[in-house]
Amino acid sequence: MAETIERKELEDLQEDLHEVQELLRRQRIVESLVHRTEGPRHELEERLVHRQHEAELRRKLDAMHPADVAYILESLPIEERLVVWSLVKSDRDGEILLEVSEPVRDSLIADMDQHELVAAAEALDADELADLAPDLPEEVLEDVFRALPVEEREQLRAAMSYAEDAVGALMDFEVVSVREDVTLEVVARYLRRFDELPDHTDQIFVVDRDEHLKGTLPLTKLVVNDPERIVATVMVETPVALYPDDKAQDAAQAFERYDLVSAPVVSERGRLLGRVTVNTVLDYVREKTESELLGIGGLREVEDIFAPVWESVKNRWSWLAVNLVTAFVASRVIGAFEGSIEKLVALAALMPIVAGIGGNSGNQTLTMIVRALALGQIQPDQARKLFAKELGVAVVNGLVWGGILGIIAWWLYDSVPLGLVMTAAMTLNLLLAAVMGVAIPVVMSRLGRDPAVGSSVLITAVTDSGGFFIFLGLATLFLV
Amino acid sequence: MAETIERKELEDLQEDLHEVQELLRRQRIVESLVHRTEGPRHELEERLVHRQHEAELRRKLDAMHPADVAYILESLPIEERLVVWSLVKSDRDGEILLEVSEPVRDSLIADMDQHELVAAAEALDADELADLAPDLPEEVLEDVFRALPVEEREQLRAAMSYAEDAVGALMDFEVVSVREDVTLEVVARYLRRFDELPDHTDQIFVVDRDEHLKGTLPLTKLVVNDPERIVATVMVETPVALYPDDKAQDAAQAFERYDLVSAPVVSERGRLLGRVTVNTVLDYVREKTESELLGIGGLREVEDIFAPVWESVKNRWSWLAVNLVTAFVASRVIGAFEGSIEKLVALAALMPIVAGIGGNSGNQTLTMIVRALALGQIQPDQARKLFAKELGVAVVNGLVWGGILGIIAWWLYDSVPLGLVMTAAMTLNLLLAAVMGVAIPVVMSRLGRDPAVGSSVLITAVTDSGGFFIFLGLATLFLV
Repeated sequence: MAETIERKELEDLQEDLHEVQELLRRQRIVESLVHRTEGPRHELEERLVHRQHEAELRRKLDAMHPADVAYILESLPIEERLVVWSLVKSDRDGEILLEVSEPVRDSLIADMDQHELVAAAEALDADELADLAPDLPEEVLEDVFRALPVEEREQLRAAMSYAEDAVGALMDFEVVSVREDVTLEVVARYLRRFDELPDHTDQIFVVDRDEHLKGTLPLTKLVVNDPERIVATVMVETPVALYPDDKAQDAAQAFERYDLVSAPVVSERGRLLGRVTVNTVLDYVREKTESELLGIGGLREVEDIFAPVWESVKNRWSWLAVNLVTAFVASRVIGAFEGSIEKLVALAALMPIVAGIGGNSGNQTLTMIVRALALGQIQPDQARKLFAKELGVAVVNGLVWGGILGIIAWWLYDSVPLGLVMTAAMTLNLLLAAVMGVAIPVVMSRLGRDPAVGSSVLITAVTDSGGFFIFLGLATLFLV
Repeated sequence: MAETIERKELEDLQEDLHEVQELLRRQRIVESLVHRTEGPRHELEERLVHRQHEAELRRKLDAMHPADVAYILESLPIEERLVVWSLVKSDRDGEILLEVSEPVRDSLIADMDQHELVAAAEALDADELADLAPDLPEEVLEDVFRALPVEEREQLRAAMSYAEDAVGALMDFEVVSVREDVTLEVVARYLRRFDELPDHTDQIFVVDRDEHLKGTLPLTKLVVNDPERIVATVMVETPVALYPDDKAQDAAQAFERYDLVSAPVVSERGRLLGRVTVNTVLDYVREKTESELLGIGGLREVEDIFAPVWESVKNRWSWLAVNLVTAFVASRVIGAFEGSIEKLVALAALMPIVAGIGGNSGNQTLTMIVRALALGQIQPDQARKLFAKELGVAVVNGLVWGGILGIIAWWLYDSVPLGLVMTAAMTLNLLLAAVMGVAIPVVMSRLGRDPAVGSSVLITAVTDSGGFFIFLGLATLFLV
């Protein structure tokens, strides 16, 4: 990255965005004038002004960091976005495509022809290309693949072969390596032959003749130690080494725990394959938690805020459909007790409280268990302990909140039995919520599924239908 | 950090945990034997075995990274946790306290006397101490403060003066700086005087006589360039510089966008105050998203999974109380229509569907808007565009899903008017959800509040009560 490109905080970026929007607005005005005025001289003049605005925009974009151009593109409605995109220098297309979110990327790629796409892709490293590949048309990918040098072609093939959530998918190939039997002086001379070192080179990898990893030489050690010393005496002999099939999640935790900047990736036999750097890990953590947040909110994937209505409907329908089914089931549970409700209409007003509080309480337990599972804190022999504790919490909450609501029900409808049923139903539904709040994520994780996905819908479905059933059932038994 | 300390991935860590548990179990057995058997010879023998287990545990813990000891402590029930804690070397207490989650930290601190706490705190840097300070008893803090050298005392005072979510709170003071008019050779000689450089030193700061930041010298540049060159000709002149009062969130975004490892922090006048490193940012991002996830799940803070029932009840009650109030309001809305329900009991069974789907749809809109706000993608003049789009999505969803449910209601209860009311109510409640899904986070953010906190409860409250009111109101008007 050239140093002339300034890096900014969000506030300054928003100012940039406003400037871009202002320039776009002026340009639009000029365009509409060109269309309206007639004389050829007028037209020529307006065109000139138009050109000037365009040149200014171009200059502005050229001076911006790719990630900042990505921000501008994401913040603009689709027509303006494409105007800006057409003004970006084509040799920067690739790195910018890597930075934008997926739906925005799709909208940009849809606007490019095959030639442009091939050019953009060819400007990228193998590991970056692997990230972009799923979004590229088949023909483009083939063209790029054919044009690659053999080594990079192999790297691309390797990078694309790993699962999306494996360390291999986070790996890059920009490793600088030295032998262990040379002096630091030799290493220093070797490094000086580079124009620049790859980004995030905080350590150099030490390998033997067969490329087996022997250790790592942090730059901080290289610079503080006597140049006469031998690499082997200075290097870190047992660095964290990752395998390409390790879970990305575990690698991310290792980076966090040990405050790493980069880590080598080795084959089963210890051959150095590549490295993972902290910026990739940071992106991974962000994407992972973001998709978790989206999942909780009921969105399938990141949504372009300027997506057409139809795209948004598609992104959201599956979740709504699932909820419609669970709501329908709950509705049928109520339907089974219509006779009781007809006789005692207060039940209709009180039943959503029992179901709602059960859902909240179940989600509290669930959230805690899902977090502990992700951190590997729950051992098999502790499940019983956790059940016991959660049941204890449920009993306390049931008696306290159920008691309060029982008194309110008694006061509202002047019926002690109704109050007692309310308290009992609340307690039982909270117990159900506690059991399911522990059981659902633990079972999902035993089955090898991510307990964060879908368990919230499941528990709400159980506590809704269960809450209606328990409350209306008790009422039918004791009140009607 | 000594290189003899191995770093591990989660799987290996879990094995360690099992070993520790096994050792603890054996020790407990021995202890119970000591209590049961009588003869003094027996006792002596058992004590010896006990000692051996203890020594083995101690060795195991000494060889572990502080973050890994923290993991073990968090995964153990409270009694076993305190046994392990007592075996940890006291000079490591400080760094381990920094690594554990807050509730576990509290449980450990409660087990230490003042003398131990002061010793633990004194082993830390000023910025680390500032992180720990809120959890330490007043007297301990005073003791530590008095014992600090003047410079560190000032640093601690400064670090503690910043808001928790300001860059100042993430800053450390371990900066290595040089002048711009010296050669790289001189810099190299200067660095060789250090035993080791601070962690995450990817760049050296270039300052003038008055400590004003002039630029930064990345180590990667130091090692590839000719030693004869002058620092000023090699350094990065416009690095990302943060101010201590900047929002931590904005700094984190800058680290992500520009793939930084460290960034200087300067005063308003450009004096170098300290630096922020990527590991702190990674921790911050993790904590921030974690507290967001906890908030959505209805927990006030991270919960120690082995916390006593009472602690858990305290952590969860406030959220349940809020929900109880909103559920009560919804219940009263239903109560107002009891007459209609008595006449047409089908309404009781159908009404939760209208409310539930409204809540889901509202949360979808909300999730998208909150994300866009956090990324600074929403401009004031675009609010109308977003409203229009979300209303469009709501109309489509309302007609599709509302239509399906209308047909089902018609089929179940053999009443066309009931089906039409169902469809109309669904559409109206989805429109309400769309409006509130955009309005709530936008208004909260205008008021300077975090739109991610509490807006989900708010929208669910509106769509619940609103859904009941719309459906029962329409039914009362047209059906009863």
